[in-house]
Amino acid sequence: MIAYTLGIDYGTNSVRAVVVDCADGHVVGTSVFEYPSGDQGVLLSPRDPHLARQNPADYLAGLRASVTGALSSAEGTPGFARERVIGIGVDTTGSTPIPIDAAARPLALDPRWANNLAAQAWLWKDHTAAGEAAAITETARQHAPEYIAPIGGTYSSEWWWSKIWHCLEVAPDVFEAAASWVELADYIPAVLAGVGHPRAIVRCVCAAGHKALYSDTWGGLPSKAFLARLDPKLAELRDRLYDLAWPPGLPAGTLSKTWAETLGLREGIAIAMGGFDAHYGAVGSGIRTGTFVKIIGTSTCDCAIAPVSDRIENIPGICGIVNGSIMPDYYGIEAGQSAVGDILNWWVGVCEGDESLHGLLSERAARLRPGESGLVALDWNNGNRTILVDPRLTGLVVGQTLHTTPDEIYRALIEATAFGARAIIERLTEYNVSIDRVVCCGGIVEKNDLFMQIYADVIGRPMLLAGSPQTPALGSAVAAAVTAGGAPGGYDSWQDAQDKMTTLKEKRFEPQPAAQAVYHELYGIYRELHDTFGGGAGAAPNLGTLMKRLLAIKARA
Amino acid sequence: MIAYTLGIDYGTNSVRAVVVDCADGHVVGTSVFEYPSGDQGVLLSPRDPHLARQNPADYLAGLRASVTGALSSAEGTPGFARERVIGIGVDTTGSTPIPIDAAARPLALDPRWANNLAAQAWLWKDHTAAGEAAAITETARQHAPEYIAPIGGTYSSEWWWSKIWHCLEVAPDVFEAAASWVELADYIPAVLAGVGHPRAIVRCVCAAGHKALYSDTWGGLPSKAFLARLDPKLAELRDRLYDLAWPPGLPAGTLSKTWAETLGLREGIAIAMGGFDAHYGAVGSGIRTGTFVKIIGTSTCDCAIAPVSDRIENIPGICGIVNGSIMPDYYGIEAGQSAVGDILNWWVGVCEGDESLHGLLSERAARLRPGESGLVALDWNNGNRTILVDPRLTGLVVGQTLHTTPDEIYRALIEATAFGARAIIERLTEYNVSIDRVVCCGGIVEKNDLFMQIYADVIGRPMLLAGSPQTPALGSAVAAAVTAGGAPGGYDSWQDAQDKMTTLKEKRFEPQPAAQAVYHELYGIYRELHDTFGGGAGAAPNLGTLMKRLLAIKARA
Repeated sequence: MIAYTLGIDYGTNSVRAVVVDCADGHVVGTSVFEYPSGDQGVLLSPRDPHLARQNPADYLAGLRASVTGALSSAEGTPGFARERVIGIGVDTTGSTPIPIDAAARPLALDPRWANNLAAQAWLWKDHTAAGEAAAITETARQHAPEYIAPIGGTYSSEWWWSKIWHCLEVAPDVFEAAASWVELADYIPAVLAGVGHPRAIVRCVCAAGHKALYSDTWGGLPSKAFLARLDPKLAELRDRLYDLAWPPGLPAGTLSKTWAETLGLREGIAIAMGGFDAHYGAVGSGIRTGTFVKIIGTSTCDCAIAPVSDRIENIPGICGIVNGSIMPDYYGIEAGQSAVGDILNWWVGVCEGDESLHGLLSERAARLRPGESGLVALDWNNGNRTILVDPRLTGLVVGQTLHTTPDEIYRALIEATAFGARAIIERLTEYNVSIDRVVCCGGIVEKNDLFMQIYADVIGRPMLLAGSPQTPALGSAVAAAVTAGGAPGGYDSWQDAQDKMTTLKEKRFEPQPAAQAVYHELYGIYRELHDTFGGGAGAAPNLGTLMKRLLAIKARA
Repeated sequence: MIAYTLGIDYGTNSVRAVVVDCADGHVVGTSVFEYPSGDQGVLLSPRDPHLARQNPADYLAGLRASVTGALSSAEGTPGFARERVIGIGVDTTGSTPIPIDAAARPLALDPRWANNLAAQAWLWKDHTAAGEAAAITETARQHAPEYIAPIGGTYSSEWWWSKIWHCLEVAPDVFEAAASWVELADYIPAVLAGVGHPRAIVRCVCAAGHKALYSDTWGGLPSKAFLARLDPKLAELRDRLYDLAWPPGLPAGTLSKTWAETLGLREGIAIAMGGFDAHYGAVGSGIRTGTFVKIIGTSTCDCAIAPVSDRIENIPGICGIVNGSIMPDYYGIEAGQSAVGDILNWWVGVCEGDESLHGLLSERAARLRPGESGLVALDWNNGNRTILVDPRLTGLVVGQTLHTTPDEIYRALIEATAFGARAIIERLTEYNVSIDRVVCCGGIVEKNDLFMQIYADVIGRPMLLAGSPQTPALGSAVAAAVTAGGAPGGYDSWQDAQDKMTTLKEKRFEPQPAAQAVYHELYGIYRELHDTFGGGAGAAPNLGTLMKRLLAIKARA
């Protein structure tokens, strides 16, 4: 039975739609829409470098344009017909809260609020709410430690409650005008389903569990008593949000008549539960028990799953363990590294080079043997997300001589990110998450063999490459095929859908024993620096605070 | 009374002669001779990067050419005449031992040995004798700790006995053929004086005391018993070396008839005691009690003096305290930093820049406020000479973010060398060496105001600039004027000679209180890193060995 699904991936600067053949995951149509507003879609403030917002009108324009474009480009594929599209899946960046009115429309679409930065979507990388995040962490430590135990013990300024509270603090008029708030990952499915009021929006547990402190364990969102400790108005807001959130596989709704006509699709086809790009990227990479998925870009998002029957405990420093956030009946486990490609881009910039310098430095670095440079670096130029959960850590390079070359430092920085990746994997396996293979996707993965070989040698496991360069969009399409399981061509099981619709590249990277041995030793040195400068237990008393003291001096300078 | 002296400065790549007016230190003639042999005068080995030798024939060619050239260029100066030259002073690099025959001629001038690398002059930067140096240190620790106490507790691979012993080990034929050995600083004065056998060479206490473990305290050179513990042949060699060494001010001889004719000077004029470039550079910078002289180049040599009546104790980590090595009746105190300009050159190279990038990076770095970069670095890319006396330490930079710029790192590296300088000054003052002003000379000093201001702010003392750009040659000329004290136009006292012949520039750099306060705090952080990674007392147990372990891995790679 020939069937297709649509996968729609909302990135920071663009939205991409793909039309996928449910039989084999083949992409038969694709289209990318670049956001027109602001700076590549991002609204910035000249007064605050931490602010990053986005105009929700871009999301709607992008929905229409990307889907229409993808369907047009699929025309002519033998067997393809618009009526054979059986479902739509959506993934987005997050946490991206949007204030909405009583009709579930973003406030920013109303001309009265259109130019108010607080009324826009609050992008994942908006860090204006650092103060609120710290206060939430502190309040939870004192009054509800169970809330933050599954997220590594620290609530982030990038997340739902920090941002909404910050809006209340700095733009109370916007907060008052908002009937409710919605994650972008829930908003787009609700738009497609024609949802007309906030309480009718179907919320995904992926966003709720990882960003909004939602858990069945304590009855959904944090208690009103807890929220009232932050601000009574947040406790009031709780009643206007949601009681329940749902795992993927369940429908977020069905395609509305209006949008069916707009897009030229059948009314009533399944809309998959929304989800974050990394999570659906993991699905598109064929995640299963024992598979660790790394989506490697400027930063890295890691995902693993573990059967709910395994009763995984809270894992220190792992930023999220949420029942059903990636696939139903599994814990979705999320980790990450704050800078990976960004560290290499930074180094190329320091060397006054352009994009092409990556190739030259990699080529020269590939001629070095492990350990030959005498260098070890920490990969904290943008803080440490996992396993230290500390955005205020900074970089370090040790071992330089007068002969140290730019390519030696480049290699040491790649190695540092690989050591950081190993620290995450070790933490998970120490807490009984099984990991036997690593599947990677992202631009670096496809372009940089040196990078991948170092990761294999440092991590000591085969590094596999996802078959698709666009795993989030593909994963959304997989979710749509499962959600539309009852329709001809859909799937009843995630396993079947992944087996058929996702692939791995033939190319893979195996650990080389000699290199692995050297890197094992260097990893020990990395961990000494990591544990000491990270300030954890056993850190040398002074050095554990050294980076923070430097930042304090910098802030005063 | 119009009189002139010649100062001859033997550098690594060239020799410079100046003709100086004794009345006011004015240079009336100058000439530089670039060595023709090898790589800018240095003989290297493709098999051993630690090897650095020099052909002594270059020294003789350079003597003739530079002096002749300087005298020619002085011709025409009103009042100048060759017969008014009353003395010659010589300074050289060191320790630079040269094997010589029974006629006090370098073996390498004999065609039989001309192509043997071991028969050449062993340059100061030759590090082939690392093993011998370690064994000398260990033997002294066990059997004669008094020998190494005045040199900071560690004998260097750059010094006299390490090199001669290494020659015995790797080229026993050269060792056997050598009637004796001579420091370059003693060899050139002996050549000018026409000395015809090794025992007649007048040896300076500057080289003997700082490099050959010579001290009146234990009767000159190390005992035969001690040397026999190293190798019986070294004990035998002791008899063919010297019993006494002398401070500056005493003559190394008088100009021989042959060389008087060669150079067109009067026979019998005074030849000053030889000395090292840094020591005569200190004289040319107007060193006195309370003055700390910094000769800042690729590395930095520091000199201070203290009256012998002060009975300065041994100072831990200070590489030499020698009675009479800079001026008679004063302890000459030597310290240094293994890389200063070299670290900045290294960084410019990492940024793929050429010489001109120093200007651009300095200009941008000058716009930064102290502490603004959030960076602190260690200045150990070439090891640490003072106060840790450990050539096997390496560099470190901490505090990088994704926004860290090349000029921020450039400034952090300047600051690191300034912190290193402060550590030296603090160590000296803790041990009662008085320091109230710092006089600097060298290319960076003249060219880079940012560098000098940072030093003033970090060190917290006025930074003064020596009046001459060529202080070693000027200092040698001063020494010649004092040595020729009996001749009309000469000086009876060092103080008088320095007062008249040396000057300071009007330009000076005063500490700025606000910057000083920030740097005081950053210096505290530098010292935490310094003391921890330097492996001294109180170091975190693992981090104190971390750099060494990295080097071991590097060596194995």
